[in-house]
Amino acid sequence: MARTSLSGFPEWLPEGRIIEQYVLDHIRQVFELHGFSGIETRAVETLEQLEAKGETSKEVYVLDRLQAMKDAEAGRHSSKERKMGLHFDLTVPFARYVIENANELDFPFKRYQIQKVWRGERPQEGRFREFTQADIDVVGNGDLPFHFEVDLPLVMAEALATLPIPTVHVLVNNRKVVQGVCESLGVTDVEAALRGLDKLDKIGPEGVTAELACSNINGEQAEKLLKMAQIRSNDPDEIRSRIAGLGCEGELLAEGLNQLCALLEEAHRRMPGAVIADLKIARGLDYYTGSVYESVIEGHEDLGSICSGGRYDSLAKDGKRTYPGVGLSIGVSRLVSRMISAPMVQATRKVPAAVVVAVIDETDRARSEDIAMQLRSRGISTDVAPSAAKFGKQIKFADKRGIPFVWFPGMEGEADTVKDIRSGEQIEADASTWTPSAQDLKPRVISVGA
Amino acid sequence: MARTSLSGFPEWLPEGRIIEQYVLDHIRQVFELHGFSGIETRAVETLEQLEAKGETSKEVYVLDRLQAMKDAEAGRHSSKERKMGLHFDLTVPFARYVIENANELDFPFKRYQIQKVWRGERPQEGRFREFTQADIDVVGNGDLPFHFEVDLPLVMAEALATLPIPTVHVLVNNRKVVQGVCESLGVTDVEAALRGLDKLDKIGPEGVTAELACSNINGEQAEKLLKMAQIRSNDPDEIRSRIAGLGCEGELLAEGLNQLCALLEEAHRRMPGAVIADLKIARGLDYYTGSVYESVIEGHEDLGSICSGGRYDSLAKDGKRTYPGVGLSIGVSRLVSRMISAPMVQATRKVPAAVVVAVIDETDRARSEDIAMQLRSRGISTDVAPSAAKFGKQIKFADKRGIPFVWFPGMEGEADTVKDIRSGEQIEADASTWTPSAQDLKPRVISVGA
Repeated sequence: MARTSLSGFPEWLPEGRIIEQYVLDHIRQVFELHGFSGIETRAVETLEQLEAKGETSKEVYVLDRLQAMKDAEAGRHSSKERKMGLHFDLTVPFARYVIENANELDFPFKRYQIQKVWRGERPQEGRFREFTQADIDVVGNGDLPFHFEVDLPLVMAEALATLPIPTVHVLVNNRKVVQGVCESLGVTDVEAALRGLDKLDKIGPEGVTAELACSNINGEQAEKLLKMAQIRSNDPDEIRSRIAGLGCEGELLAEGLNQLCALLEEAHRRMPGAVIADLKIARGLDYYTGSVYESVIEGHEDLGSICSGGRYDSLAKDGKRTYPGVGLSIGVSRLVSRMISAPMVQATRKVPAAVVVAVIDETDRARSEDIAMQLRSRGISTDVAPSAAKFGKQIKFADKRGIPFVWFPGMEGEADTVKDIRSGEQIEADASTWTPSAQDLKPRVISVGA
Repeated sequence: MARTSLSGFPEWLPEGRIIEQYVLDHIRQVFELHGFSGIETRAVETLEQLEAKGETSKEVYVLDRLQAMKDAEAGRHSSKERKMGLHFDLTVPFARYVIENANELDFPFKRYQIQKVWRGERPQEGRFREFTQADIDVVGNGDLPFHFEVDLPLVMAEALATLPIPTVHVLVNNRKVVQGVCESLGVTDVEAALRGLDKLDKIGPEGVTAELACSNINGEQAEKLLKMAQIRSNDPDEIRSRIAGLGCEGELLAEGLNQLCALLEEAHRRMPGAVIADLKIARGLDYYTGSVYESVIEGHEDLGSICSGGRYDSLAKDGKRTYPGVGLSIGVSRLVSRMISAPMVQATRKVPAAVVVAVIDETDRARSEDIAMQLRSRGISTDVAPSAAKFGKQIKFADKRGIPFVWFPGMEGEADTVKDIRSGEQIEADASTWTPSAQDLKPRVISVGA
């Protein structure tokens, strides 16, 4: 990470940015392969929009024009403007965008959105005040078939499985299963049950039982809820039989189980091992209405979920229509931060250039520029030495940056040569034909051991 | 443009975003070909940083945490935090980044930076409150050779010349020429001269003369300044002789003229016609110290400059060192907004998908998914029909989005077929080998006449 004077606002050195850019390009490519359209929304929303969901006020950064503030302090009347704040996720802005442009969009509308978001939270490891999210959502006009609840987590599983990082597991649950179990057990305060179960990893079963008791969930109910929460499997039959073992039943539960099992079966068919049902996932279940997703990197569970989401029956709503949606969001900054710090990966060099053209003498710079122009015209990123220093210094310029090749314009009618400064091999070369290996053409991001 | 409820904050519909993304990708590719490293800086800076340059206070959006505001209103003491604002350009943050990371960076450091910036100005056509800039800068540690003042505008000229837009002229001037002429004429208030000349297009020569008179620049001086300001040429000899015709001389003027002419000559050699000297360019000369650049699109001069910049002898400074720099910034949002509204270009379709795989029956969806998976594995963006509607409706799904191909899974052991819905031609096809033409593989951005 680069040195920075504000905590919670990460910045990368150029080599770190190569890794982040690689991740962003990769994710985007997978999203586009699956037919998602890219959009961007403005960074700001009105405060009403941001607060509509409730419970988020402490996170929002509110904007004020400096001049307006100064006018107000000086007692001058400033023009009344609507209060705006920076978006804290990409879902609220997307819902607003869908409503505003409903007549122009084609539904079901599949979009991806890769942007920064801001939260005024206290910074801590893996939590930033400014960070990049990469979201996919599909939103329907009126209805949205269940199969999208299968498709979308698999797009994310593919995007994550093809990065040079350890195995990622997408964990799924279904609100209808949990709510169905609660109903069957006679637990009426589902939200309290969810809040309690969400703390299972932190405070253990006894802690959860105590917590649930405060919400009038008795010991027998708590025991069964805990049994449910301990179900983690990618085997539909096992899940069905363990739920049956709780003695629970009901229409909603049956519907939820059918969805959860259908998701597991189809996921297993398309990407064996990628998706696992984990019935203790409760975070998000209080606002999602069907499937819910989290994702963890094997061996990096401490990082928490790097990709989460779920199904909303009402992502957005205007006077006439309701727009159901399903979507997931990758926490790109959290992921990249760990990829760099672990380290899981490294960049093969710090700059895009594959070649530095040496400059023999400042009066001869034009010749070096012409060589660079020829190489660039064939897609080879090329730099020209900043000064006609001694060749040793020009080679050092390349070496410091990890640039593999130095090009020497031929002197007195001799042919040009190009030197691979790693091996020391120097060969005659023609700028209109010479090409570095695909390996060396661009900086690559490679895995570094365990 | 998408419909949006906040003026000055542009958003694009998916087809507009395809155009913007194309421009961003293209610009980045050119920057990387020339060896510039990508970085991003955080969106926020401390207020001291933002105000250090002075004169910008009315533009800055200041941030406050909503919770802190509520605490303050309720009389609760909130923790003291440093005041932060959104950056209004990418130069101030870059200068701060260079200082903070000077020990980690390799100088001369060539970086590009493509990010949103914010200005709380009153929105008007072509001026936004949130917009994207694409900057390149090179910054030296202690010194920075003049040749970068030639190289950088040519990188921008190349980036702009290879976009599907009318010819772009990069206009150049040099602070030393203008200051040298002022000195030779005995004009001491150079800033006043610059401010006056900057209004030439708006208020005409008489207006400028009157304005200059207020700053004690007499009629004879004003006449010569106006003669200088009317020099527009890419012929170094003509420029030299017209300056000589003013009867001006001096060391600074000679140095400035040599730089300006060297820039024109080398630019002409590398990219004939791209760069023109225009000595009325005054905006920016008050903070730049050498070359200064603006760029206009032929036939769209009303849009103003879409790419500006110049040379700073002191881009940044810390206790020990001074970092000179030269850089330019493309106003991407301004450019893209005109490309779309003129229109100069259009996207060949609204979505990335080249193919929609039809679904014969919901029970058979898995087969369509498998076909899509095969196509995607070979880099072909593919969508699957959202529902097993009548084929006519599935074709309409593709047609509305501009997707050229619909794939029909073969029924009862028959081969699959793929239909080009533009020509109606339908052929047998195998998902493991069929490939659309390069023309159809991805949405392209094409020029749309004058």
